[in-house]
Order: sequence, then structure tokens, then C-alpha cells
Amino acid sequence: MSDKIKVGIIGYGNLGRGAEAAIAQQKDMELVAVFSRRGKVDTINPAIPSLHIDEAEKYRDKIDVMILCGGSATDLPEQTPQFASMFNTVDSFDTHANIPDYYASVDKVAQESNTLSVISVGWDPGLFSINRVMSEAVLAEGETYTFWGKGLSQGHSDAVRRVEGVKAGVQYTLPSEEAMDEVRVGNNPTLSASERHKRECYVVLEDGADAEEVAETIKSMPNYFADYDTAVHFISEEELARDHAAMPHGGFVIHSGKTGDGNNQVVEFSLKLESNPEFTASVLVAYARAAHRLHREGQTGAKTVYDIGPGYIHPDSPSNLRKKYL
Amino acid sequence: MSDKIKVGIIGYGNLGRGAEAAIAQQKDMELVAVFSRRGKVDTINPAIPSLHIDEAEKYRDKIDVMILCGGSATDLPEQTPQFASMFNTVDSFDTHANIPDYYASVDKVAQESNTLSVISVGWDPGLFSINRVMSEAVLAEGETYTFWGKGLSQGHSDAVRRVEGVKAGVQYTLPSEEAMDEVRVGNNPTLSASERHKRECYVVLEDGADAEEVAETIKSMPNYFADYDTAVHFISEEELARDHAAMPHGGFVIHSGKTGDGNNQVVEFSLKLESNPEFTASVLVAYARAAHRLHREGQTGAKTVYDIGPGYIHPDSPSNLRKKYL
Repeated sequence: MSDKIKVGIIGYGNLGRGAEAAIAQQKDMELVAVFSRRGKVDTINPAIPSLHIDEAEKYRDKIDVMILCGGSATDLPEQTPQFASMFNTVDSFDTHANIPDYYASVDKVAQESNTLSVISVGWDPGLFSINRVMSEAVLAEGETYTFWGKGLSQGHSDAVRRVEGVKAGVQYTLPSEEAMDEVRVGNNPTLSASERHKRECYVVLEDGADAEEVAETIKSMPNYFADYDTAVHFISEEELARDHAAMPHGGFVIHSGKTGDGNNQVVEFSLKLESNPEFTASVLVAYARAAHRLHREGQTGAKTVYDIGPGYIHPDSPSNLRKKYL
Repeated sequence: MSDKIKVGIIGYGNLGRGAEAAIAQQKDMELVAVFSRRGKVDTINPAIPSLHIDEAEKYRDKIDVMILCGGSATDLPEQTPQFASMFNTVDSFDTHANIPDYYASVDKVAQESNTLSVISVGWDPGLFSINRVMSEAVLAEGETYTFWGKGLSQGHSDAVRRVEGVKAGVQYTLPSEEAMDEVRVGNNPTLSASERHKRECYVVLEDGADAEEVAETIKSMPNYFADYDTAVHFISEEELARDHAAMPHGGFVIHSGKTGDGNNQVVEFSLKLESNPEFTASVLVAYARAAHRLHREGQTGAKTVYDIGPGYIHPDSPSNLRKKYL
């Protein structure tokens, strides 16, 4: 029998596919099965069994950690407590305001079931959260700024596509370089979301639509664009398909603090991702390793990235990490 | 009685001074005393008692964590086991090759004495080490690159000052922008230390010295400069005092990996520090908080940054961290 960590995936959209790809890169893990509401799905590796989600409970003794790849709006609030009663789990719950309630409900089930659940894993929440807390802990006198982008925004792309005269289109959120430079030199500016970000739209027009009117409608849309520096570019359907099919994202966490007699100290963490779901899934998979190890040590209940030593997510032993990486 | 974390400092050079300044910024900590071989020293806050290092053992019941601010070459290998027999400790031992032996000797004493010692804390080793391990854990197919600078290098400054005709001078190590860009676009280049870095010297000439000859001697110095792209600038004594008295440092950890069908994913962590010792000391102080908390939870022995959940270094409670930062 293999002594690899046995992993299952629940939910097989972009994130679930990304998790399958990420597990295949990890030498100490094996993917046992994929479970989804659709039952049989087209897995990347056709040898991986895919089953209806109701079959998952039969795998209680065959899976060490279940990676939950459903959405935060409706899937996870229901699925995580359900599966935490049977499995160690990892999820990417990202509705920031609801995290305390979500934590409490998952923690209760996991404590009672002697399982361990790592919640809200990914890059934000996740790696960005770690960098916010660590840089603030180290530099107590300072400010932390989060900038997102360059990234495709689903909600804003939908808003663009609802405008009359728009046949198709996408929207990217970009960090404002000027705002980032203000932060980096230690000015600790007060910046609203619209001062930290710019928006860029790539639009395919309907035949006969008035480009100027469409651009104006987009730029003046309240909440979505009116407060932002927004650029609208018109492109062909071919260009849209060729240049804008990927799901890039990323961003920056910049903390600028002062020590001693006013020495400026800047800590910066950034991500440039060609595939947002594949990266998020890769973080989930690394934390699945931590969930398995912590549970083996006897820990139970809900955990976040704040509770977990960074070494737990790496395949090497603590002594190898000290030797090779410290 | 105050319920603040009671901290002591052993060693009062630049790092010890930085630790005093950092503790003053932390609302949940108080500095009990500074200990050094010199006995009484000029602390930043004159109200802080400073004592001979031999007095430290009398403070066993008055100090929760001792921050060891001695050097890695001779002080820490002797002092850390000595003080770990009496106190929880944090140190910045940074002789990478000797970390496994150092860990073993500290761990043994701390286990036997029921104390906890966090070793090799700072930014490299320390925050950089965390970023190397986490990004490699997440992106298993990829390469991690560490670039240092812009930073003042003591050893190389000394080498410059030994050249005939040089009255005074400093040397900065700079990361090569070209090399960083190669890494960021995902080319995964093979880069030697001299391909990753450049060197810049600011030199004050002795009266009558030949600038061209001095520059040539510096640039051709084996090990130090010969393999590097080295620039030599000549300046006045006034300029040296005015522009080059600070101790800046910093650097970059860049990991470039691939997921799925070859999507490029770049994780980058960087520091721009106006004062290297003050920043290193600030990291030590944050980990002193973790040492105290872990010891209170019943843990003992030697720990590294890999073993410690990021939340342990922040003053807020786990539930506040989840609410405010996740």
C-alpha cells in the first residue's frame, strides 16, 4: 500500500480541475476520486474515478483529506460542516464578513467528529492574510495596503456585457502604480478602493452600436465604474477570443512602517498569476498536507492559515527544511 | 502587576538597540532590563536598567523571554544554550551551514530545562526562509531565487578600505534588475551569485592617490569583486558622511512556477529596509511574543519560523485575526 496522502476533491469546476492538476505535481499525494453533483465528469487524468457527491461518504476510510472546491455563496456553508463530520477538509471560503460564523459552525462539527478543517485557504484570504498579519506584527507603527490585479473580474465583466450595444467583453482590475509608489516611499496615504485601482474594459460592439455612447455608459455606471479611472478599449471578437480567454489575477500587499528614529521599512508581497483558479487550488493542496499532518498529531477542529506553521505545508521534514531552506 | 510580556535583551550593539526600540512600539510588551558584557550602557530610554550579563540569572522569575542580540560567530553558539537553561529565548543565528548543529544543541538544553527557544529569526534566515518554503510547497514545479540588496555589506566595505590609496569607503550589493526580470517572466534561468548581483563602491581617495588605479585594483580583487559587475564612484569625505552613514538592506525572494498546461505563476516577497538592524530586531521582538505564547501552551525545545503559526507573532487574539485580517 502506498503511504502517500490520500486526497479527494468535492466540486469539479475551475477550482476542482486546478486541484487535480496541483495534486499531480505533489510526489507525496495521490488523488483517490473526484465527487460532484454531476456524477461522472471529464477529469484531466481519465484514470481518476469521478462519482456523484452522495458517494463520498463511502470513502471515509479511503481518504485522508477532502478538498472542497465549491463556491462560497451557497456550496461551502452547507458542504463544509457536512463533510467535516466525516473527513479532514480544506476549503477556500472567501466571504470575508462571514468568516467568524463560518469558522464557528465548522469548528463545532470538526471538534465533535475528531476531524480537522482548514478554512479560508487560497491567496486572499490565505497568503495575503498571512502577509498582512506578519508585517503588522513586525512593524507595529505602519500601514498595510492591499492592491488587487491585474485581474479579470467576473462581476464587472458581467456589468459591461449588460450594456446596450455590447456584444461581448471583459473587465480587468489594475492596481494604480501611482498609489503603490506613494505607499512604497512611506507616505502612508489614505486611499479609497477607487484610488488604489483602475479599471480596463475590452469590448466587442454589436453591429451598428455607437462606440462613444457605449464607453460613456460604462464609465458612468454607478458603483461599478463611476468612481474609478476607467479605460474602454474596443476590439474584435477574434481579439477577444485570442487575447482575453485566460483568468489572470494577482495583487500586492504592501506594508510600510517606521522603526527607531523614523527609518522607513517596506515589506511587499505580490502575486502575478496567469491562472487564478489553478493557483488558488495549489494553495489548497499544500494546506491539505498540513491538515493531514496536524490531524495525525492529534489536533482537531477548525484552523486557519494563522494557526499553521509554514513548514507543515511543505513535503520535506522539519530537519530537512532547517538544513535546506532556513 | 502588569500582564504585559516581560522581555530582556542580552547584547547591546546595533541589534540590541533595535530591539529596545521595537519593544517600545509593542503595547503588550515591556522591557525589563538590558544585559551586556559592558554592564551599564546608554539605553535609548534612560529608565531601562542595564546590567552586567552575569546578573541575568537573577532575573529568571522576572523575564518571560530573553532576546539574544549577540553575533552568530562566537556569541550565540555559547550564549543561547547557556540562557536557554534559564529563559525562553529568541535569537538571530544566521550561519546557515551550522544551523542543524546549533538547533540540536539548543533543543537539547531547552527540552531539559522546560524552556522554549526560537532560533534563526530575522529576515534571512527568517521571513525569506518562510517565503522560500511556502512558495515551493504551493508551486512544486518551479524555482526559487533569492536576491540581496540594495544593502551595505560590511565585509566588502572592509575589503575596499584595505586597498592602497583608499581613505574611506562603503560597498553596496545590488540585485541585478535584468536577472530579476528573467525570473519574473518565467524563464527559470540558471544564475550564479555574480549574475544575480552587482556591486557599487563609494570611495574617498587619499591625497594624491590615482583614481584609475584604485578603481582597477578594486574591480580585479578576486572573490570580492572580480566576478561581479562592479562600479566604483569617487566622493568626498563630506558626501560619505552625509549620504552613506545608514545601514540599508533588503532583497527579494522570487519563485516562478508553472501549473496546469504551463500557466506561469510568480510569487514575490521583498524588503526595502532603511535600517537592517532595526528591522531584524523588530522580527525578533515579534517572535518573542510567539515564544512566550507557545511556552504558555506547554511547548518546549528549539523552534524555527517553520514551526510557528503566523498568528502567534501578532498581538491580537486568533478570533480577532480571523475577523480583521483574514
